[in-house]
Amino acid sequence: MVYFEEISLQTVGFSDIHDLTGQISAIIKRSGVSNGLVNVFGIGSTNTITIVEYEPALVEDVKDILEKLVPSSMRSRHSETWGDDNGFSHMRATLFGCEVTAPIENGSVVLGTWQQIIVIDHDNSSRTRRVRVTVMGE
Amino acid sequence: MVYFEEISLQTVGFSDIHDLTGQISAIIKRSGVSNGLVNVFGIGSTNTITIVEYEPALVEDVKDILEKLVPSSMRSRHSETWGDDNGFSHMRATLFGCEVTAPIENGSVVLGTWQQIIVIDHDNSSRTRRVRVTVMGE
Amino acid sequence: MVYFEEISLQTVGFSDIHDLTGQISAIIKRSGVSNGLVNVFGIGSTNTITIVEYEPALVEDVKDILEKLVPSSMRSRHSETWGDDNGFSHMRATLFGCEVTAPIENGSVVLGTWQQIIVIDHDNSSRTRRVRVTVMGE
Repeated sequence: MVYFEEISLQTVGFSDIHDLTGQISAIIKRSGVSNGLVNVFGIGSTNTITIVEYEPALVEDVKDILEKLVPSSMRSRHSETWGDDNGFSHMRATLFGCEVTAPIENGSVVLGTWQQIIVIDHDNSSRTRRVRVTVMGE
Repeated sequence: MVYFEEISLQTVGFSDIHDLTGQISAIIKRSGVSNGLVNVFGIGSTNTITIVEYEPALVEDVKDILEKLVPSSMRSRHSETWGDDNGFSHMRATLFGCEVTAPIENGSVVLGTWQQIIVIDHDNSSRTRRVRVTVMGE
Repeated sequence: MVYFEEISLQTVGFSDIHDLTGQISAIIKRSGVSNGLVNVFGIGSTNTITIVEYEPALVEDVKDILEKLVPSSMRSRHSETWGDDNGFSHMRATLFGCEVTAPIENGSVVLGTWQQIIVIDHDNSSRTRRVRVTVMGE
C-alpha cells in the first residue's frame, strides 16, 4: 500500500530549520499503514531533510557547522555565472542530502526520543517549501 | 511484505565503528523476501549508519575525517547549555546521516565487494545501541 | 510490486559527475509502477549518489567543495597500507553517501525543477560503474 501527502511551509532561508515530526506522524496515521517505511523528501535543490535533536542550542550548532563547512561567503561559479548568489545553498543541500527514509511500527515512525525529522531551507530568501511524505507498507 | 528486526550492540562511543553487514544479511534471509529494499536505521540522535569498506586502515581514516570536519573540541551551545559535552556527537550524526536503504535481489543485499554497512556511535560514553532493520518486498 | 534494472556507465574518476535522471525516469516507466518509491544505489565503495542542479557551474562547485572538505592529498592510512592512493575516494563516498530514495507519483519521479539525481565517481582512475535502480509501489 502506498499513500502520500505534501507538507507546505513558509521558510526564511539561510539554513532556517523546522521540525516536521508531528506532521509526519499525522500523515502516517491518516495512511492507515501499520508497518513499513516513510520517505520524507524535500522538493527543491536548496533544501535538506535530516534528523537532529530539535532543541534551540543544537539548532544553532547546526547553523554553525553549516557555516564552517560550507561558508555563505564561499566562492561559487554558480553564483558568479547566474548572479543569484546561492551557490552555497546548493552545496549545503548536496552535502547534507534532501531525504530520509525511516521505519514505521504499529502506525508510528520509529525514532529515538531525541530524534526529530527536520527540513533546512538553505536558500538566501524566504519561500514556500514543499516536502513530500510517502508511506509504504501494510 | 514487511519484516523487521532490531540489532542491539554495545559500543564505546567517540565514533566507535561496527560492521553490521552479516547481521543484516541474516535478517533478510529470515524475512523470506527475495526482491525489494532493506532500510537500516540507527535509533538515537548521536549515531550514524553509512557504508564504507570495513578494513582497519579505512576505519581509522573515517575517525580522522570526522575529527577534522567536526572536532570533538568544537564549541557547542548544546554542550554549554546542557553540560553533557556531546554537541559534536549530534553534529556528526546529522552530517553523516542515520540511515541507509539498499536493494535486495534473490534474498541478498546488493553491495559492492568492498561495501559494508556500518554503525558509528558518535557519543562520548559507552552504551547499548539499537539498529532497526526493515525489509520490504516480495 | 518490485522492479529493478542496472545502469552501467563509463567514468573517469576524480569525482567525475554524471546525470542519471533521464535513465531513472525511463526505468520507472518500464516498471509500470504508478505510485511508490525509487531507490538509486551506487554499487562500489568509492562512488556517491546524490542530488544537485546539474548545470556546469554547480558541477564545478561540487568538485571544489569535495576538494576542500576531503582533499585528494589527504593523509590516508588506507592509501599508505594498500598503496592504491584512493583513501580520499572512500572518504568522499562515505561522507556524501551512495544512495537516494525518491517518491514516484503517476509514473514519474517527484523532483524539483532543478533537482537531478547524479552519480559521482570519486576513484582515481577510469572504470565501469554500476548503479542499481529499484522501483517499489503499485
